[in-house]
This record gives sequence, C-alpha cells and structure tokens, in this order.
Amino acid sequence: MANFILLAGTANPGLANAIAQELGVQLGACVTERFPDGEVAVQLLESVRHKTVFIVQSTSPPVNDHLVELLAFADACRRAAASQIVAIVPYFGYARSDKRHGRREPISASMVAELIQVVGINQVITLDLHAPQIEGFFRIPVDSLTAVPTFCEALRDRLPPDLVVVSPDIGRLEMATHYAQQLNTSAIVLHKQRKSGTETEVTRVIGDVRDRPCLIIDDMISTGGTIARGIEALLNAGARAEMTVAATHGLFVKNARAKLAHGSIRAIFVSDSVSPSDLDWPQLHVVSIAPLLATAIRRLSIDGSLSDLF
Amino acid sequence: MANFILLAGTANPGLANAIAQELGVQLGACVTERFPDGEVAVQLLESVRHKTVFIVQSTSPPVNDHLVELLAFADACRRAAASQIVAIVPYFGYARSDKRHGRREPISASMVAELIQVVGINQVITLDLHAPQIEGFFRIPVDSLTAVPTFCEALRDRLPPDLVVVSPDIGRLEMATHYAQQLNTSAIVLHKQRKSGTETEVTRVIGDVRDRPCLIIDDMISTGGTIARGIEALLNAGARAEMTVAATHGLFVKNARAKLAHGSIRAIFVSDSVSPSDLDWPQLHVVSIAPLLATAIRRLSIDGSLSDLF
Amino acid sequence: MANFILLAGTANPGLANAIAQELGVQLGACVTERFPDGEVAVQLLESVRHKTVFIVQSTSPPVNDHLVELLAFADACRRAAASQIVAIVPYFGYARSDKRHGRREPISASMVAELIQVVGINQVITLDLHAPQIEGFFRIPVDSLTAVPTFCEALRDRLPPDLVVVSPDIGRLEMATHYAQQLNTSAIVLHKQRKSGTETEVTRVIGDVRDRPCLIIDDMISTGGTIARGIEALLNAGARAEMTVAATHGLFVKNARAKLAHGSIRAIFVSDSVSPSDLDWPQLHVVSIAPLLATAIRRLSIDGSLSDLF
Amino acid sequence: MANFILLAGTANPGLANAIAQELGVQLGACVTERFPDGEVAVQLLESVRHKTVFIVQSTSPPVNDHLVELLAFADACRRAAASQIVAIVPYFGYARSDKRHGRREPISASMVAELIQVVGINQVITLDLHAPQIEGFFRIPVDSLTAVPTFCEALRDRLPPDLVVVSPDIGRLEMATHYAQQLNTSAIVLHKQRKSGTETEVTRVIGDVRDRPCLIIDDMISTGGTIARGIEALLNAGARAEMTVAATHGLFVKNARAKLAHGSIRAIFVSDSVSPSDLDWPQLHVVSIAPLLATAIRRLSIDGSLSDLF
Amino acid sequence: MANFILLAGTANPGLANAIAQELGVQLGACVTERFPDGEVAVQLLESVRHKTVFIVQSTSPPVNDHLVELLAFADACRRAAASQIVAIVPYFGYARSDKRHGRREPISASMVAELIQVVGINQVITLDLHAPQIEGFFRIPVDSLTAVPTFCEALRDRLPPDLVVVSPDIGRLEMATHYAQQLNTSAIVLHKQRKSGTETEVTRVIGDVRDRPCLIIDDMISTGGTIARGIEALLNAGARAEMTVAATHGLFVKNARAKLAHGSIRAIFVSDSVSPSDLDWPQLHVVSIAPLLATAIRRLSIDGSLSDLF
Amino acid sequence: MANFILLAGTANPGLANAIAQELGVQLGACVTERFPDGEVAVQLLESVRHKTVFIVQSTSPPVNDHLVELLAFADACRRAAASQIVAIVPYFGYARSDKRHGRREPISASMVAELIQVVGINQVITLDLHAPQIEGFFRIPVDSLTAVPTFCEALRDRLPPDLVVVSPDIGRLEMATHYAQQLNTSAIVLHKQRKSGTETEVTRVIGDVRDRPCLIIDDMISTGGTIARGIEALLNAGARAEMTVAATHGLFVKNARAKLAHGSIRAIFVSDSVSPSDLDWPQLHVVSIAPLLATAIRRLSIDGSLSDLF
Repeated sequence: MANFILLAGTANPGLANAIAQELGVQLGACVTERFPDGEVAVQLLESVRHKTVFIVQSTSPPVNDHLVELLAFADACRRAAASQIVAIVPYFGYARSDKRHGRREPISASMVAELIQVVGINQVITLDLHAPQIEGFFRIPVDSLTAVPTFCEALRDRLPPDLVVVSPDIGRLEMATHYAQQLNTSAIVLHKQRKSGTETEVTRVIGDVRDRPCLIIDDMISTGGTIARGIEALLNAGARAEMTVAATHGLFVKNARAKLAHGSIRAIFVSDSVSPSDLDWPQLHVVSIAPLLATAIRRLSIDGSLSDLF
Repeated sequence: MANFILLAGTANPGLANAIAQELGVQLGACVTERFPDGEVAVQLLESVRHKTVFIVQSTSPPVNDHLVELLAFADACRRAAASQIVAIVPYFGYARSDKRHGRREPISASMVAELIQVVGINQVITLDLHAPQIEGFFRIPVDSLTAVPTFCEALRDRLPPDLVVVSPDIGRLEMATHYAQQLNTSAIVLHKQRKSGTETEVTRVIGDVRDRPCLIIDDMISTGGTIARGIEALLNAGARAEMTVAATHGLFVKNARAKLAHGSIRAIFVSDSVSPSDLDWPQLHVVSIAPLLATAIRRLSIDGSLSDLF
Repeated sequence: MANFILLAGTANPGLANAIAQELGVQLGACVTERFPDGEVAVQLLESVRHKTVFIVQSTSPPVNDHLVELLAFADACRRAAASQIVAIVPYFGYARSDKRHGRREPISASMVAELIQVVGINQVITLDLHAPQIEGFFRIPVDSLTAVPTFCEALRDRLPPDLVVVSPDIGRLEMATHYAQQLNTSAIVLHKQRKSGTETEVTRVIGDVRDRPCLIIDDMISTGGTIARGIEALLNAGARAEMTVAATHGLFVKNARAKLAHGSIRAIFVSDSVSPSDLDWPQLHVVSIAPLLATAIRRLSIDGSLSDLF
Repeated sequence: MANFILLAGTANPGLANAIAQELGVQLGACVTERFPDGEVAVQLLESVRHKTVFIVQSTSPPVNDHLVELLAFADACRRAAASQIVAIVPYFGYARSDKRHGRREPISASMVAELIQVVGINQVITLDLHAPQIEGFFRIPVDSLTAVPTFCEALRDRLPPDLVVVSPDIGRLEMATHYAQQLNTSAIVLHKQRKSGTETEVTRVIGDVRDRPCLIIDDMISTGGTIARGIEALLNAGARAEMTVAATHGLFVKNARAKLAHGSIRAIFVSDSVSPSDLDWPQLHVVSIAPLLATAIRRLSIDGSLSDLF
Repeated sequence: MANFILLAGTANPGLANAIAQELGVQLGACVTERFPDGEVAVQLLESVRHKTVFIVQSTSPPVNDHLVELLAFADACRRAAASQIVAIVPYFGYARSDKRHGRREPISASMVAELIQVVGINQVITLDLHAPQIEGFFRIPVDSLTAVPTFCEALRDRLPPDLVVVSPDIGRLEMATHYAQQLNTSAIVLHKQRKSGTETEVTRVIGDVRDRPCLIIDDMISTGGTIARGIEALLNAGARAEMTVAATHGLFVKNARAKLAHGSIRAIFVSDSVSPSDLDWPQLHVVSIAPLLATAIRRLSIDGSLSDLF
Repeated sequence: MANFILLAGTANPGLANAIAQELGVQLGACVTERFPDGEVAVQLLESVRHKTVFIVQSTSPPVNDHLVELLAFADACRRAAASQIVAIVPYFGYARSDKRHGRREPISASMVAELIQVVGINQVITLDLHAPQIEGFFRIPVDSLTAVPTFCEALRDRLPPDLVVVSPDIGRLEMATHYAQQLNTSAIVLHKQRKSGTETEVTRVIGDVRDRPCLIIDDMISTGGTIARGIEALLNAGARAEMTVAATHGLFVKNARAKLAHGSIRAIFVSDSVSPSDLDWPQLHVVSIAPLLATAIRRLSIDGSLSDLF
C-alpha cells in the first residue's frame, strides 16, 4: 500500500484525515493558500512522481472555490508526473444540473465532467451521485459508491418498529427501495403535482403511511425545504409524528436548521461527505463514510474489485 | 434555402422524402450499397463542398447497420469538405442504455454520442429523446424536439371525452403531463413495484381512472409488453375498456402486433420516425413528423430559433 | 500470466476458446445479449480493474454488429477501469475501403480506426491486414501479424511438387513472395487489364505456369469470384488442373461454395479468423491461428518482442 | 452589426453596458442566478443560434465564481449552437501563475486556458495581459489589447511637467517604455534585490528621479503593496512628492485603500476592467476601456484588423 | 474572390506567383526569415482575420525546413484568427513512408498528417499523392488533384506515334493507365523481381514494347535511378531508343542529371510543383500546374466542386 | 534499471554515450538515415515494447532536422508500443519564440510543444529553458533542470577573487542570482535601452563593476553578439579586463568565434548540451551535463524525486 499518496483539499480535511487513519497512512504533504485577491494556490510538498494520487475534495459550497482547487491539485500532480490521478469527490456539486429542459442553459454537470477530465484526472470516486447518467458525461471510469449500507448499519438499532421508508420524490425511489431492502421494510414515494387549472403544487403521498413512523431518505439536504414539505404531507396523510431523516450529503445552506426544527423530527443523519457546519445540533448525527472510502482506496491500490460498494 | 443538402440514409427514405417535399427541395443525390459481405458503402453523387448537410437517418433496427451507415455518410461529407454536418436522428437507438446501475457495462448511449462526434458530425436533431441527460453525453448542440404537439393536433378530434392521460412508468410522467396540458385534461402514472418478501412485480395505478377512457402515451413501443401490462393494470383499476395508445417511435419488434391485439385498444398512433413495418393494420395510425423536422431545418437554415419546438 | 483477462466477443467464440486453451487460462466471464430490437448489450461478469484485457473479436459478417459489440466491450472495460485494452481483430472488416479514388466516399477503414480509438482501445492485433497503410490510420500500436508461416507449416506436406505460388492480383504479390520463400519455390502474379478501346477486362498471367500445379493465395475469400476468375486464367495459360487455394480469411459469402466447386481445386485452406460457416465441405481445411495469437498474447504479457510474428 | 450578441456576466455589468452603448446595441437577454448552495446557473433568454456571441466577463474577485460563470455561459452558448464564442476577459485572473519556479505547483494560467478552450470558447480578448507568454497557453486566437493609449489620452493634460515614468519592477519595463513613448518622456525601473548574506530586500531605483514628479505604472493594483514600497524607494532616491499612479486593473483587495493613502499620491488612475469597488475615493479616477473594447468588437464583426490596438 | 489570402512559403515562390497571376490577385504580404541558428521565423504583414488563407508550400527538399515553415505559417494564421487555413502542398514530402513493413519504424506520412492537423490546418490540396491511402491519415479534407491531364495537354503534340506508356513499377500502374487513356494508347508495367535463390534483382517488362517509343511516367523523380534502370530494361526488351519521361514532381537530388543523361532520352517533363533547380538543361521541360491550382482555389472560393480535377 | 531504453538521436551522440556510460548501460540499438532527398528515416533495432524510452536529442542546429528526427523516433516508439516516451532535449530550440509582441507571428515554442505532444511523447526533460513559461505550453510533465550547480562546481577553482556575476539582460537575472549565490558573490545586470528621440541603443550597467573581474553568464551563446556588446559595456563601466563567460548552451553560429576573440576573455564555459563544433579553441571549456542527466534518468527509473535538480 506504499505506492500511493492521499492528498486533502480544503473542502473536508476531517474526512481526509479519517480516511488516512483508516488506511494507516499519513496524508501527503501539501498546502492550499489563497492570495489576497482570492486566487487559490496549491503546492505539493513531497514527490508524487510515478505514484497514484488520491485527492479528497468534495465540491461542496463554496462550490466554485472547491472545484478550482481540485483542478489545480490535479494540474500540479500531472505536471509533477503522477502516474494516476484519482479524484475522490464524495459530494459532487452541480450534479442536479444534468439536463436542459429545452432551455438555453449549460449542462453544468457535463461541463464539470469535462473540466475534471481536461486537467488530467484519470478516475473519479463519488458517492450517491444525484443521477446515474452523470457517469456517461465522463469518458474515464467513475465509481459511484453508495452510503446506504453504511447508513443502515448506523440506523438499524435506532429506528422505531413498523417504520416505512419515504422517498421525497420519484428520483430517489431507487435509493428508498435500497434502504427498505436493507432495513427489511417497505418504501413509499412522495410526488409533487400541479393540479391542472390552478398554480398550487401539491405533494401527494403514494402509499400507505397511516400511523407509521417514517424514515425520509434523500441524497442530499440543501435548504431543507424538500424535507419540510415532505413531513407536512406525511403528517397530513396520517403518518405518526416520529420522523427520522437520512441524507448522504448534508449541505444545510441558508436557514436549513430553522426549516428542520420541526417537532416531529427525532433525528437527522448525514455523512461526513460535506464538512459539518454546525456541530452543536443535538438532532444531527454524522455517519462517517471514511471506512467506505478507505476500503475503496485499498481495493484500488491492490487492484481489487469495487463491485460490492456500488 | 439553397445552401444546404438534405441526404437520406436507408433507415427511413419515406420520411426523408416527406421532409424534402415540405421544404420544396430535392433530396441530395447519394447512394448506399451493401457489399456481399454486408459492409456498407455510401457515396455522394453531388458536391457538398462548403454546404450544410442534413443527414436523415433514424438508428432504428437494424440499429448497428443504420448507425454505421450514418457514420459513413458523415465521414464522406467531412472528407468532401461539407461546412456543417447535421444528423437528423428522429429515433435515437441505444438511448435506453444511459446508465450502468453499478454493473460492469458500457453506457452505450454515451458511446454512440462519442462515435457520432468523432466522425465530424456538428449537430444532432432528435425527437422525444428517452432521457434528457443524453444531451450531456455530447459536446455538440443537440436539439431534442418533441412530437407531442404534433400528436395532440392529430388526436384532438379522435379522442373520447373525459379522457385521462396515462404514463406507463415514472420516466414518462413529464411527457404525460405535456400531453395532458395540451389536451386540457389530467395525467396519472403507473408504477411497477416489487412487494418486499416476494418476487412478483405489480403495476400500481397512481391516480384515479375509474370509468374513464385512457390515452396511454410513451416515447416508444418496442415489443409492446409495457403497453399490454399497463392496460391490464388500468382495467383492473376500473378504467373503461377504451384505450388509445400514442408513442412517438413505433418499433414493433418481435410479436408486438400480437401483444397489442387487445380488444380494448381503439387506436395506436405512432410517428414516422421509424419506417412503418406493417402497413396493413387497421388500428395503426401514422402521424407524420415531416412538417416538424422541415420547420426545424428551415429555421436552422435561416438561423432562427428552435425554442418553441422543444 | 495472471494479470490479464481474455474476453470473447460473439464473432468467433471457437477461436477465443482455442486461444485460451493454448494459454492455459479460462476465458473471462462476460455475456453478450441482444435486446429484441437488436441492440447489443454486453456485460462483464468479473473485475477487469487495473488489468490488461484482450478482446477477441473479428469484425466479420455481420460486420456492423460485430464492430459495435467490440466497441461496447471496450467501453465497458474502460469504465470498469481496465488498465489496457487490446483488441484482437484477426479479420479486420472494412479494410478494403482504404482510399477514395477521387470519389465522394468515406474512407471506411480510417473511420473504423477512429471509432476503435475513441472508445479507449489502446492496441490492436490483427492478421494479414489488407493494406499495410491501414496501420497509419491509427495513432495507437497496431501489430499486423501474418499467418503465412502457419499456413506453410500446414501446407508443406500436402502440396504437389513443382508448385508455383500465384498472387491473384498485384496487391497480394508481397504475400505471394512470402509464401514462395517459405515453400522454396517462385511466385507469379495475375493482372486484370482493360484493353483500350473495348470494355472487356482480361486477366493476364504474368509469369510461366505451364504444366505446373498452382497454390493460389489471398488474404481473404469473400464471394470466391477472384479465385474463380484466376483459375480460369491459369488454366488458359496452361497450368495443370491441380489447384490449391490458401487464404487467411474465409468469409464465403453469397454462393461462394458454388463458385469454388471447380473440379481443378484440390483443397482450400483458410484460418479460423472467421468462424467457419460450412463445416461439411470436404475440400475445406481450417488452419488454426490460435497458437499464433496465443504466442502474441504471451509475448505481450511478458513484455517481449513480436517482431518475428509479422 | 446585427449578427452578434453581446452578453454580460455578473463580474462587470457596468462595463458591458458601456460597451453596448458605444456599439449602439442592446445587451443580449440572459440571466445569472445563484442557487442557495452557491452553484451558478446561467440562462440565455434569446436565441444565439448561428451567431457570434461576445461574453464580457473579467475573472476578477471572486475569481473562481466569475471563471465558472464564464465557462457556464460558454457551455450554454455552445449547446444553443452559437457559431462563434468570444470571451472578452478584460482582467484575466490567475495570470500571475504562469510558471512553476521548480516547485510542485500547477501553472494555473495554463490550466485556466485549457478550461476556457474545452468548453468551446473560440477566441479570447484581454487587456494588458500580465505575461505575453500566456497567449502560448492557448491554441485559439488571443488578442491582448493594451489600454496604454487610452490612459495616456486621459492623463496627458493632468500630468505635471518633467515627469518620469516608473516601472515598479522589471516585468513592467516594456509597458513603462510604451507609456514614456506616448507621453514623450523617459522611463526608469525599480528593482527589488536581496543583499547576499542578509534577508532584507531592498528596492533599488535604476535611473535618475531626483526632483522629478513620477508616474508609477503597473498592469494591476492588488493590495497596493508594490506601489507603496515603490513610492518609498522613489522618495528616498530624491523624487518629488508628487506621484501619479496608473494601473490597468484596479482590484484594491485587502486594505489597499489604506496602503495607498500616502500623502504624495495625487491621483490613481485605473480602468473599468474590474468593477470599481469604492466609488467614494477622491484620488481614484476611472478611465473607461469601453470605447477600446467596442472598437475591437466592431472590427471583429466586420472582419477588420486589430493590429493597432495591441 | 476578395475574401481569401494567398500566401507563399519559400519552397516555391515562382509557383505561388504564377497562381496569383492566374487568379488576378496579389500574394498576401508575409515574410519568412531565418535566424542565424537556422530557426525559421515567419510573419504576416497583413490581416488574415476571418479570411480563408491558402498557403502554397511544397515540402520539397530541404523537407524538414519547408515542413516546419508551413506549420509556422499555419500557427501564425490561426493565432491571427484566420477562419480557414488551406495548405496547398503540391509535392507532399514523406509520402513514400506510408507503411512499416513489419519494422519498428515511424509511419512518417501519417505523422506529418498529424502535425499538419494539430497546428490548425483545415484542408490540404496536393497533387498526384504517392499513395491514395494517405488521405486516410487525415481527418480533414484532402483533395489530391492530378496533373495527368495537364501533362497530356502539354505532351500531345510532342510525342512520336505508336507510343507506349510505361509504368516504372506496379504502384504507378493506375497513373500510367490514366495517361494511356488520355493519349489514346496502351500502358505496360515494369516489375522488379528477386529471382529465388539469388540476390540479383531483375526488372521485368510486362507487356510488349518491341520497336516502340516509350513514355515513362512516374509521380516523382528523385535520384533518377528508377528511370535509368527502367530504360535499361526497356531497351533490353527491344524498345526503340526514343524515350520521353514525364513525372509530376522533379526533385533531381544527388547526381540525378548525370543518371538521366542517357542518349535515348529525348525529353523530360516535370511540373513546377518543386522549384526547378537546374534551369540550364535542354532536355528538361517544365509544365506549369499553376492553372490547375488556380482553378482549384477559384472553385474553393466560390464553393464549387473539384471532382473533375481528381 | 533494466526496464528502460536509452536512444540517441543524431544531434548529439557524444552526450548520449556519456549518459549511457554514467548509467552503465548500452545505448538502445537504432539507426537514423537520410534519404538522398533529405527525408529522415529512423528505425529501432530492438524491442521497446512496454518499456520506458528516453530519447536524447537536442533541437540544436539544424533545428528542423533534429526536431523532425525526434518526432519520428517518438512515432516509431509509440507504434512499437513503448509504455512511456521521455524526450531528453537538453537544448530546446525555438525557445526564444515564446510570445507574439502584438505581431502576426506564430508562437513557435508553443507550436513545437504541440508537435512534441501529438506524436505521443509523455514527458520532456530539458535544461535551463529560456523562459519558464514554456512549461505551460505543455500539458505533459516538463522537468527543466539547471546546469548552474554543475557549472559552479567546474568554475569554482578557476575564477579570480572578487568576481561579480553579470547577467547580460534582465531575463537572465534570476540565473545570475543563482550563480552568485552558489559562488558566494553578488550579481549585476546589463540593460539595453533606447534613448528617447534617438535610435541608438545603449547597454547600461546596473550595479558596480569597477575594477572587478566579471563572470558573464547566459543560457546560450548563439552568434556571440550579446556577450561581445556586454563586454564592451562592462569595460566602459570600469570593469577589469578579465572576463569569464559561462553559458549552458553553446551554439556558436555564424562567426561567433571571431566575435568572441576579445582579448579580455580568459575562458568560455559551455555544456555539451549542443555537440561542440569547434574542438580546437583553447579558450573553450566544455562542462559535461551527462552526470546531471544520468541522475535524472536514474531517479525517473526508480520513481524518485527530481526536485533538487531544478
């Protein structure tokens, strides 16, 4: 396991350290500075020549700074003759911009994929990618791991009986089903609909939640709005006021904490894919994905298969 | 409108002719031959130098033959110094292979996008693309038009009152909503679900269809299996036995006609994106998309906007 | 020899098996399916991560299906992080489309070379390539092996004395000379000529064949027409009615067997580069190139030189 | 002049408006939004199909946000089939990261050049680029205009007699000479030197400034430190306490205004390449480069030469 | 015809001037210098912005100097924003290095094709290219014109009756046939053969030349050795000692003139594709291809077809 | 150290031999020929398959021949399946063409960088590169080593006391400082200036040289003009007539030796980066960089760091 270097960008040094500890290695020596005008300047302080470099950097907010820092690290590694550059991007920003809807827009996730490739990154490891098609934006291997088993392991003993898994929209139904299978229960889905003739959008509950506690799952929590609306709908549909929330990526931007201060929420679980911004929040539980990523790196270093981590 | 050439591949000469007629132009002189060993040989019989060439070629079955023929036409045009090569691919084969599902597979739609780009095609026009993310597989402009208004125009006077639009699965819900808006009615969705503990897959009807005639829509009909299962579920849910089917692309492979010989089906509408294989089928109605594509070409030739055709 | 995987496409599983046996390895687990609409779907059933993958797939008829299958396998391997993808294409389809002759055509062999490269194939191994310039269509290494020594080995004891080697046209003269050197005899060439003023094409025999048995060689037999015309010319020139035919690639399309049912033909030798279509043909002898290809793979796996196999 | 669209990013809408006014055109309709998590979302509100699009966007602080916005606009334009995408980047961020100095670093200016090219930008127009070699980082045309004549025009009547032009370091000597030629005076240069054996860096004045008023020129003012140190050295060398400062790009980051509150500074001239952050600063004069850029756009639109603008 | 610029490299200014005169245009203002160390420095002295530039430059000896000069001109044009760069390379050096013969060599013609493309040349016009497959080394359009009609026009009245056209080897047979058709006579071919068992190479005359005057044709004359050996063989076969030689490209390197000072040679015709090195040689006649190339440029400028010039 | 091959181009076989000797290896078997028409033909005489190949080839005069030979070697290696191709280009021709100065020129150094990359070279090692920005013209790793320590080692005992290091222009100031640090003395700089109003260019001496012997350093000596003018200026400024010259690359083109026959020059030191043209010149001392390059190769072969060689 000596022939690789694990580098940490500034997006999430805690996670990088945890991965290093899991692997029993030191983080590679490097430094990220910012010039007074905000330009990012990275420097490697040890040789990466002919080595595989894993760069741990979520493109979480501030997304553009973290993205350009990742690209700069890759450029530095390539010019320093690294043999292989693997970007570990647990949270992949811009993933929701994956189509144009007939509008004159960029497809930002596809554009980011190009930026990542043009600077010489050879492989990407990410986690619970928002849309599986994003893999197809790349010509390099993309390993999209899932944190669902990790979450289920952490959740199993803390969940009330007779639980139902809730997908907050149709796009997460597959993930909800994955949770339900692991937790040996069933999944239902919420569906936003616009009634014809009116402008009001209604969230319908498709499936039976009457008197049951809910585990609302999602790939990410941004402002918390989706979760808050979902809880409203679930309670209206007769669900028990005993909600657990599990989302792989916890951004918690804007006044997310206020939105999620709903009395029915017992606990919110997120991973450490995004550096936790609010450590003094009793309901918030952080499930570390460091063991999962360390396993992926270990397999990649000894040429093993990742297939059971998807 | 004199500075472009409209070429027809062999996938659908009828459509190409109809487009040419709409535009009031002659098809460009070219020939596709097959050597005895099956190799495709195309030849342009007039100059395309410094002209925009539109190649009309659905990648319908036999998909690989039609795909390679399209690529060969593009290579011929590029070597003959066409200034711009636009592939008009009304039916885009391999579109359903848009992700890997964690398996060791190709992402064939992404691979096809690369093949199309590497031979020098500058732009793609397609119709009701299976997944909007496929645009992101390309770096060139992709205009994914929709045939929904064309179908609604054709359907409007032939539909029974109190109709409900049915999406056969969650992926088509947006298209169903588009139909419903145009037809001034509402849309419901079918959802295949696997009950936990058992292996049986059940199609659930999400929404109320009791005593209502249905318009089942889809982007394509392949073997007809999805439609047949949907009708079963709709009838079980109390829908009236008065079904209309509308799908942009009618492949009708295997014994599709047999599967779709259900007494409740009043009419099946498909476009001519795929060359109709069975002309002697009373229930089958072909709605021509030639006017839509001709409009797109006309706009492209005079540098106009396409935005109302998406 | 453990660090590579040998995959078999569906073009010629027999050859792939024979190579595997020569090498003493199992074929890599993979599957090729065809959807009802003819789309090819491949899947790897074991990890290829960080391994060299050899994909055995002639692009023999149906050429487009076999070509796209090869490309799909490569895309799957690249996305599954294979370190090196080597296409073993014993019969390289479209090789005869290597120039434009001043016509507005594709150069299909060049286009195929681009397709092969764009999906991430790193190296190509092929056999008795129709034109040596095709190597220059690639930027990746192309090893064009020759089956001539393998054929000579097989032929040596079955040929009548005083044999003359016949090249059926000028393009094969180098190959004929190679045969002649190995068999310690001389080579002559046939030359198609159009008499000025008339339209009739005459095949001239350039060299002396009077009363001699002939070994007509070629890189491939497609419809058998070239061979049949050559025999006619040779007999007219006084050759003995004792013909042997040796061609690396035996496609035998159309009514080739009928065309080759000439009384003077004692035996036809082809390799197993193309899956033999007609096993019940007494004159037909199949010379296996599995040992040759196995040797190439063995050398490539232990980093040796291939130079004596060209 | 009807066949182009002028788009304004959010870095400097004032400049874009001024250019539009100079050209007598409306700015193209577009919108830049930021999602709550900071992701940038741009949208074009009018057709750019087959048009040349000029995107005005300095990559001034916050540099990464402005850079990604520029790339997103380009991706949107390319997917909307613009025929030509010209980035007008009056201030080119990361330009000072143009070499590695033997350290394991990125060459950020080269990396940015690659990002700009990979999203389909066809041409770059910039102003007083920090190092002329940066043009060589691109394969597309880069027109690096100079604001020196514009500044001299504005300065001419406001400068004291007997002025000497001062280059604050060796890298700006060519620019200082350009100023001196236009102002019909001479240029001298400051040179930072580290005395051997000690750590102290001394700024030497190379040339005679005794009793003369100075025009200190530079390509950019970031924190103002370079200018402040230069004034110190000039005064020590006997220059008159009557300093004028002229810099193309005025970033004024950190506490630049405090650093530049030196009694000897009569006036500071910067262009509007960077959106002025501090409008209530009596010494600060903004010279508009809108006429220069408008002229460049006009020439590009009617296919003229730019050579007198370099 | 005002929207293009015709540039002359230093390989053949006479030809470029002749083309300009044919077209009634001035050559574009540019200069090629050589630094004392031999580095080539080109400069454009007028704007090429948004124009099509035709660069006339044969890659004749000194081939590497002429090649790099061509590439430098293209780089200058691309950076100066030419819209289209067309290389007119009447004599294409390295064309004979079109295959590897199983040796560890470059394929220099393919490599040159890559160099030409990577600097931004969009199209190549060449003349009687040594091997038609070289077109396939390019992804851009290559128009390989032929000088045969031009030569036949010039030769027609100067040839003795009963002439036979001679191809000096098999590779030129197609060209010889083209000559024969135009001159209404027949063609024969010489064939070098190595007798088995010995080392001596013999040139065989395939066809009847007894008592006939010969027109030996070739694509190029380098050292003259091939022609000299051919004449020997023809005379031995009974041809009349009345030889005419016609070759598109006259390099005449080494002591070619001495080799070609054979009494039987009445006249040698070459084109001005290569700058004639020896003007004081009575037997040498130069046929200008300027009209042919001017026609090609005129057609390209008004978007016409070139097909009758191949 | 067995897994690499060291190849020598013809630019500097002596240096290549010296490197091989330092490394204790044989040079790889290869041959460079020139056809009579000047085309370069290279051939590898041993297998490079799966090996790292180091090609030693300065692009010294004749620069275009040496450059194309380097490219041809790379193409041969790539087609022969070398795993890694490293160009060792001690003297990098065209390095001074690193910018356009607002003129319509190529940026030849950038163009050469592209040529080098397009033929498959994976890494470049060079020495005292003229401008550090040239690294940014490449996307592959460029290791620009410095010969300064090697020169200082050789010079240390041969220099008079009280020496001052002289940079002949501003661009070499960093190198002069490097020398001064290693030799424990100080550096001054010469500066060419054009007096306003007149045309005469004057070389100013910036720093004190009175009565001191000088070590004039430079990256290269071409015609010797810069050095000659510098000596003139130094003597005028009162320097002692005891000059030593040290330049990494000694081209000595034109009548350089005559120009450098100045009585005050005690010795001229150059490296063997360029094959010495004049061995019978008492003042000329050649310092071998073979040990430096051998160390670099050794480190690259065992994956070590090069950072102390920059």
